[in-house]
Amino acid sequence: PTSKLPDIGSSIFSVMTGLANASQAINLSQGFPDFDCPEQLVQLAAKYMHEGFNQYAPMAGMPQLRHQISLKTGKLYGYQPDPETEITVTSGATEALHAAITAVVKPGDEVVVLEPCYDSYVPVIRLCGGVPVFVSLALPDFSVDWDQVKKRLSSRTRLIIINTPHNPTGAILTRQDMDILANLINSTDILVLSDEVYEHMVFDEQEHYSVLQHPGLRERSFVVSSFGKTYHTTGWKIGYAVAPAPLTAELRKMHQFITFSTATPLQLAIADFMDEEAHYLELPAFYQAKRDYFIAQLQASRFEFIPSAGTYFQLARYSNITAEHDLEFARRLTTETGVAAIPVSAFYHDKTDNKYLRFCFAKSEETLKAAGERLAKV
Amino acid sequence: PTSKLPDIGSSIFSVMTGLANASQAINLSQGFPDFDCPEQLVQLAAKYMHEGFNQYAPMAGMPQLRHQISLKTGKLYGYQPDPETEITVTSGATEALHAAITAVVKPGDEVVVLEPCYDSYVPVIRLCGGVPVFVSLALPDFSVDWDQVKKRLSSRTRLIIINTPHNPTGAILTRQDMDILANLINSTDILVLSDEVYEHMVFDEQEHYSVLQHPGLRERSFVVSSFGKTYHTTGWKIGYAVAPAPLTAELRKMHQFITFSTATPLQLAIADFMDEEAHYLELPAFYQAKRDYFIAQLQASRFEFIPSAGTYFQLARYSNITAEHDLEFARRLTTETGVAAIPVSAFYHDKTDNKYLRFCFAKSEETLKAAGERLAKV
Ligand SMILES: CSCCC(=O)C(=O)O
Ligand SMILES: CSCCC(=O)C(=O)O
Repeated sequence: PTSKLPDIGSSIFSVMTGLANASQAINLSQGFPDFDCPEQLVQLAAKYMHEGFNQYAPMAGMPQLRHQISLKTGKLYGYQPDPETEITVTSGATEALHAAITAVVKPGDEVVVLEPCYDSYVPVIRLCGGVPVFVSLALPDFSVDWDQVKKRLSSRTRLIIINTPHNPTGAILTRQDMDILANLINSTDILVLSDEVYEHMVFDEQEHYSVLQHPGLRERSFVVSSFGKTYHTTGWKIGYAVAPAPLTAELRKMHQFITFSTATPLQLAIADFMDEEAHYLELPAFYQAKRDYFIAQLQASRFEFIPSAGTYFQLARYSNITAEHDLEFARRLTTETGVAAIPVSAFYHDKTDNKYLRFCFAKSEETLKAAGERLAKV
Repeated sequence: PTSKLPDIGSSIFSVMTGLANASQAINLSQGFPDFDCPEQLVQLAAKYMHEGFNQYAPMAGMPQLRHQISLKTGKLYGYQPDPETEITVTSGATEALHAAITAVVKPGDEVVVLEPCYDSYVPVIRLCGGVPVFVSLALPDFSVDWDQVKKRLSSRTRLIIINTPHNPTGAILTRQDMDILANLINSTDILVLSDEVYEHMVFDEQEHYSVLQHPGLRERSFVVSSFGKTYHTTGWKIGYAVAPAPLTAELRKMHQFITFSTATPLQLAIADFMDEEAHYLELPAFYQAKRDYFIAQLQASRFEFIPSAGTYFQLARYSNITAEHDLEFARRLTTETGVAAIPVSAFYHDKTDNKYLRFCFAKSEETLKAAGERLAKV
């Protein structure tokens, strides 16, 4: 029998990180920091393990952590979700995305996907028997062409997936985008899945606008976030989903059979840390400085770019360097130049090649400087 | 739109643990120890967190952990799976089960399920559009009636799910069972999913017989195990799947979009611990003593039982106590008697009630004694 996902090979993140390691290249491909999480988080996790919090967490997540998520969401977005019925802690945002899509997409349902997009959305839709309906973001700024979206809606549209700040492009959605989206769907049954894992990385005095701030959207949306991104703990694999009670009930039916629950001591550590620190408030300045530092390095190169508005990724166009396909160029850049990046074609179902590479700047200055020196020579 | 799993409510484990906590009852329902994991494991995890191992693990799992799994499997079962292509670390055995089923079951495929069975199998089959084909284990010893299984095979059978040692009944499969199964399917394309999470809890000088020991089976099987069960770390959520390379390739396609990877420092701690200690060799005696202690308490009660051959569960029949449905009786036992157990009907798709409760004896002597005293009065 044939594969259920015949077109899927190893994920581009595994491929490029593997190649980076094999080539001893500077790894600006897969999105993770090369600096550590706050020491206090580690101490809290160790404390809870030592105190014996090593057995199952409740399926929906530790109550302390859901409480903190609720408070923080209220403070930031003016809406305080009910920890009992509207918040679910998951094994990373990837699991939350999987559970949300699987909870609502049935065979034949259409799901609008804005490309380029994170690589898990489409395979999960297909595994549910859903039909992805692709709309490309508009070059060069990767904005959403809502007229295009409107044209692709049908009576079978079940879900629209948005992502702000946007991986891989760094574009962000505005309040106005959200208003247009709300208008588009308010007389329909269409649901929204909003991937907001980079919510705390928005630059140049702009603000993240969350679906949770929008009354017309949040009542029909799953909103997904990630402690891995926010607290530099990508290896702890803790994320969460916020959704109205009826949607959360469906999402939890999936979650309980996907992983059931998530590492107890790590959840407790994050809950305490959230209670003590508004650490995430420092992230915009922290990552903006890294972006600007990396951009300063790129100025000396032949790459072209628009500064990223959010995320910890910077796109760079290389069309005046070579006409190679971006996957080929990314490989060569890794093995010959010693800098690994993600080819953006990996985020298009048909591998559309617009000659962009994605660089992760969640790295120390030292790393970014060394990468910049190498890239300047290309 | 209606639910994709309309019949699923909160899992019986969440329901009974919730009721136990609310009633301050002794919780012998959900399967987890009330004693702690080895202190050394906690120290190792803390060490790795302090050393900065807080970013993504490779998708397939930390190489050190896969290496240890391979060595241990070779030592115990005479077959050393290739860590590169045959072993995948998952966020608990629950995720491994999900990934294995989802990897191979397509709409219309039939999956043979032996009831009673763990509550995740059937919903995951249904989410894939698969058709569960139920065969009941034979009372009173819950053995497999292979003639029944044979009768239910068809050209659409894709997978048979087995579980040894068996949750909730404690029954184990023998080498002979495995031979019969291998004969049944050797001229077909049928695959096997063998849930062996209680592999280290087999009593009375019997031995666990793993599918991995059987050349005719292992080449067409997914074998799932759990560090949560083996190392008393149910709250760390680390499990794994072993399967031949082509099946592992399909399973990993699922895993990379379900959770992508699993907590890095916890994986490293388990790898080191496995290298240093054959701790699991103590488990049969350790849990057999607990079983015997619990059974000694039950002797004073009106419950009837056959000693569990494996797992950390003991079934008890209560038909000479009351004619109540087991869910009702389990609730009343929790709220009135102060001992929570799992009603075995929860493990049947049609809630078949054979008047059995499942008690978890992975508890301190003190807990088991207190529970026994309460149960003796029923
Ligand atoms: C789960 S590995 C991918 C990490 C990530 O979010 C990215 O690099 O885009
Ligand atoms: C994932 S909670 C269920 C634990 C368990 O395996 C059981 O109690 O049967």
